Amino acid sequence: MNEVFRLDFKVRDYECDLQGVVNNANYQHYLEHTRHEYLEHIGIDFAKLADEGTMLVVKRIEMDYQFPLRSRDHFRVDCRLERISPLRFGFVQNIVRLPDMKPIVAAKIIGTSINRQGRPFLPPEIDQAFSS
Amino acid sequence: MNEVFRLDFKVRDYECDLQGVVNNANYQHYLEHTRHEYLEHIGIDFAKLADEGTMLVVKRIEMDYQFPLRSRDHFRVDCRLERISPLRFGFVQNIVRLPDMKPIVAAKIIGTSINRQGRPFLPPEIDQAFSS
Amino acid sequence: MNEVFRLDFKVRDYECDLQGVVNNANYQHYLEHTRHEYLEHIGIDFAKLADEGTMLVVKRIEMDYQFPLRSRDHFRVDCRLERISPLRFGFVQNIVRLPDMKPIVAAKIIGTSINRQGRPFLPPEIDQAFSS
Amino acid sequence: MNEVFRLDFKVRDYECDLQGVVNNANYQHYLEHTRHEYLEHIGIDFAKLADEGTMLVVKRIEMDYQFPLRSRDHFRVDCRLERISPLRFGFVQNIVRLPDMKPIVAAKIIGTSINRQGRPFLPPEIDQAFSS
Repeated sequence: MNEVFRLDFKVRDYECDLQGVVNNANYQHYLEHTRHEYLEHIGIDFAKLADEGTMLVVKRIEMDYQFPLRSRDHFRVDCRLERISPLRFGFVQNIVRLPDMKPIVAAKIIGTSINRQGRPFLPPEIDQAFSS
Repeated sequence: MNEVFRLDFKVRDYECDLQGVVNNANYQHYLEHTRHEYLEHIGIDFAKLADEGTMLVVKRIEMDYQFPLRSRDHFRVDCRLERISPLRFGFVQNIVRLPDMKPIVAAKIIGTSINRQGRPFLPPEIDQAFSS
Repeated sequence: MNEVFRLDFKVRDYECDLQGVVNNANYQHYLEHTRHEYLEHIGIDFAKLADEGTMLVVKRIEMDYQFPLRSRDHFRVDCRLERISPLRFGFVQNIVRLPDMKPIVAAKIIGTSINRQGRPFLPPEIDQAFSS
Repeated sequence: MNEVFRLDFKVRDYECDLQGVVNNANYQHYLEHTRHEYLEHIGIDFAKLADEGTMLVVKRIEMDYQFPLRSRDHFRVDCRLERISPLRFGFVQNIVRLPDMKPIVAAKIIGTSINRQGRPFLPPEIDQAFSS
């Protein structure tokens, strides 16, 4: 449970807005992509689950913006899973610029798992993967 | 078949990039949204079709960029359908700035309809809607 | 200060992801666009300020996801400004589906104003607009 | 001039839409990012040029969509520069899926270079880089 997963990125120019820095919403994309890569790493396929009717959904997100990323910046996003309750899990995530490790964003995401009807539903494979 | 459908928009700041103008890819979003609104207008539900396994897909797009849109600009996107063959249809689309009608983008999009297996498939309701 | 600004939208299909609902990051776009329209409404031009070197920046965002929006949904985003300190301001924002007013997202955004060097800087026109 | 530049990517889930495949506009993002990386590779900084008032702009884009990318797909985008005239340059670009090299998109992009006033303007460093 204490494993920290890390993924490295480089800013793409289209992710920057007219202030010349990465648009705020794009940090959510970086965080989401890192979570999905982490899930793949532990054997969970987000798209396949969606196709089968199990939705991993975000219930709450908190993000502290510490410093903006700019065109061409390299950065690292990490992801650490915390089981909060049988049906709630948290992801603690940080974005740091590379190579100087300057803090960019600190985030906490609370998620859950539902079925097509919107009811709480946790498939055994996720329950197991998130407990190991 | 000669009906021209029109939809008005306003630039959202997050659609602009570090050059201070709307990012090129976003014009494709404007064109797509206008096509989908046009389809809804003639009784075709893009998302419902996708859910049922019929995909309306773009095969080719040509876009001429005539002048850039900026923050706060108002603009109009139009859409005119041309049946090219039983399984191919074209959309002629233009974007003009409002209120001065300055040409922004001229585009031609060629689309077709396929099933989940990627094979050509045109449901009767689309065939009919596109023929009227 | 207690004025509530409201803006109505309709979901665009490209804003939905493979789960068939609006992608989480796009709600941040809706919130941002509403804030910028609110700023324009009270006489503040976000893009012009950026061009002149004054950046209105988000420091922290909290979002509770209550229910997802789907293709074609209509929705309303509101925005209420709260002055937190001379250099910090908060925006309380809600997204509700139309016409049934179902709660979709509840958000709180903390922002500040900086100059090109990243130092706190509040132009008098913003100070005045945010105090009235 | 005949050098072919290549960049490898992996599909991010947020780039897929409700059809379960990469949204059409995102291929433009992939193409643009690859062009900008190519420009960086030959010593041209797109964002710095924009900051100094020289805009490299797209005048025309043609894209043939051959097959869609899906969640988790790996793919390669290439970029080959062709000087069309003193002030016009073309980029021939292809997207292929990895590792099977299945053709995904074939594109041709025509660009030019303008100054802040929108007038044709080619800085010597670009002229030289594009001639070598």
